[in-house]
Amino acid sequence: MPYPETTDAFTVTDIKNWSTFKRQEVPLKKFEDHDVDIAVDACGVCASDVHTITGGWSPDIPLPLCVGHEIIGKVVKVGSKVKNLKVGDRAGVGAQVGADLNCGNCKANQENYCPNQIDTYGAKYDDGTVSQGGYSSHVRAHEYFTFKIPDGLETEIAAPMLCAGLTTYSPLKRLGAGPGKKVAIVGLGGLGHFGVLWSVAMGAETYVISHSESKKGDALKMGAKDFICTNKDGWADDWKFTFDFIINTADATHKFNLADYFSTLKVNGHFHMVGFPDEPLKELNVMSFAPNGCYMGASHLGNRQEMEEMLELAAKQNIKSWVQTIDISEEGCKEAVERVHKGDNVRYRFTLTGYDKVFGKRA
Amino acid sequence: MPYPETTDAFTVTDIKNWSTFKRQEVPLKKFEDHDVDIAVDACGVCASDVHTITGGWSPDIPLPLCVGHEIIGKVVKVGSKVKNLKVGDRAGVGAQVGADLNCGNCKANQENYCPNQIDTYGAKYDDGTVSQGGYSSHVRAHEYFTFKIPDGLETEIAAPMLCAGLTTYSPLKRLGAGPGKKVAIVGLGGLGHFGVLWSVAMGAETYVISHSESKKGDALKMGAKDFICTNKDGWADDWKFTFDFIINTADATHKFNLADYFSTLKVNGHFHMVGFPDEPLKELNVMSFAPNGCYMGASHLGNRQEMEEMLELAAKQNIKSWVQTIDISEEGCKEAVERVHKGDNVRYRFTLTGYDKVFGKRA
Repeated sequence: MPYPETTDAFTVTDIKNWSTFKRQEVPLKKFEDHDVDIAVDACGVCASDVHTITGGWSPDIPLPLCVGHEIIGKVVKVGSKVKNLKVGDRAGVGAQVGADLNCGNCKANQENYCPNQIDTYGAKYDDGTVSQGGYSSHVRAHEYFTFKIPDGLETEIAAPMLCAGLTTYSPLKRLGAGPGKKVAIVGLGGLGHFGVLWSVAMGAETYVISHSESKKGDALKMGAKDFICTNKDGWADDWKFTFDFIINTADATHKFNLADYFSTLKVNGHFHMVGFPDEPLKELNVMSFAPNGCYMGASHLGNRQEMEEMLELAAKQNIKSWVQTIDISEEGCKEAVERVHKGDNVRYRFTLTGYDKVFGKRA
Repeated sequence: MPYPETTDAFTVTDIKNWSTFKRQEVPLKKFEDHDVDIAVDACGVCASDVHTITGGWSPDIPLPLCVGHEIIGKVVKVGSKVKNLKVGDRAGVGAQVGADLNCGNCKANQENYCPNQIDTYGAKYDDGTVSQGGYSSHVRAHEYFTFKIPDGLETEIAAPMLCAGLTTYSPLKRLGAGPGKKVAIVGLGGLGHFGVLWSVAMGAETYVISHSESKKGDALKMGAKDFICTNKDGWADDWKFTFDFIINTADATHKFNLADYFSTLKVNGHFHMVGFPDEPLKELNVMSFAPNGCYMGASHLGNRQEMEEMLELAAKQNIKSWVQTIDISEEGCKEAVERVHKGDNVRYRFTLTGYDKVFGKRA
């Protein structure tokens, strides 16, 4: 069955062989009045893709599955009620393609916490189909979750902003990053590097906390004021009561003494996590929060307004993600997810490109 | 050695026999220019007293030890630099009697997070003495941690406000309790009942969450709008995304599925703990914070401004703690700490009184 009822996708068919991709047609949801179809030109490779296909978050995923939720492409079809986009626009889709847009959260511009939200891949639609991601020729999304990309931003540079960018931008915004604030970003990977770029752009004094000195040079190039290495006991002692908040992009379950990180927060500061590890947190004592009355929490993506603000900010300040591109193919997808899984010198995001070469010019 | 170099105290001498109190003279710190001596008339019995003397928080406590940090009495001596109080005033002391008053936290009115804070009992002073609490004839405290009690408040009613009151008032204030806010208080005990009284007084719509129906009537009498019982699976389902924040006064390690509580918070709401259990929290997954982007944290006491505001509020609105009094004696102290330890029908705070009968009129 040709497009637009299916998409030509690089899929995982078995979580035991999670890095083996098979190219095949998979069905798309029924096209509705608010839907937008996008011919994909680039897709970032997110750690979520790897957590999902390895079964790390849940062994129970619908197969075959095409992942990828940092998508930019060309609008090729719009539903009759779509207002924000037209055919030919360059548009992006992040990690969410739907919500009921009617509940209390949605009405309060918290659609990323809608209990009926629909993930970009792996979600079951009412019509029985499963949502499919951007390692494919086309994606279909509700217009509310489809974003015009400002002209100043290059496609391959902007694609990872759609998930990793938003995921870090939203808590920075909500926690008040700006002049006069001291912000620490833990972990300099795909998420972390956006954390630094945004925090600096928002005017906050920004620090990077990392377990390895090897990224110090890059952190400073991204605009960090200083780099704090955790490879020595007592690393936190010089930083007590320093940061208004911390965005943790590292896996909090690994080699992580949370109390050390907490101790670097100002009174009532927030330790905010944006990655979701496969394993639970280390055992935690309530007393760990007592020395400064701090909080720990996490967030999921961001809302539409934050996505638009972030893209505007990036365009206005000419902020460039640090990406490496890999041509999409069965081998390209394999290399990308394996290297993300191993943390093998990804500096700092892979973007799959070369879609026209594989899928042809689509319309 | 007679007072004022010692105090006549009911002390614990062995954590294995933590409810056996021995009356004896114990030394007080050297009297300094900012110190205030108070002849105690009443002292609340706080769960902290029990955590301390049982060795629950730490087996390493200085002995003999006199606990008690919800103290009201008469000022009998003031240092040469004391400005806020004079001999004859009625004054209170909470769980903190000192801080450096010079660090960044102190200068920011966060003296309750001063790294050099001095607890009312069990802290070592530079002169080698140990701070001693209010199950005794006298206490000595720095004036900054000594509070004039407004005339409208009865001594035995106000005493528990000095720790339990402040500990709940401070986070309610900082998290913004007031008209238009929905606040839940978990656990209706000494701390919890203050949580309800303050939250209602501040104008918030206040709910009590408890594992037992038996306290429903009291909760409503205290002004709660509704009572939520957790004794059924799925209790949280009707309350999703409801509360701006939750003050948890219960022991979070016992029978506690934190994710259920988190689910009742609005987006970015706070689950705020004010009790410090002996045991660590149950294993926690970062994903538990994801459905609403919530936070979990804790606080320690409150600052001087919050203490004064709270006492003013209580006087102005004629807010009365629900207390039962027990005459101070070796037997009285034993009964009080054993019943607090067992949770044996304490509704909702014991205040030790009858000090004049035991210690005589002091001056």
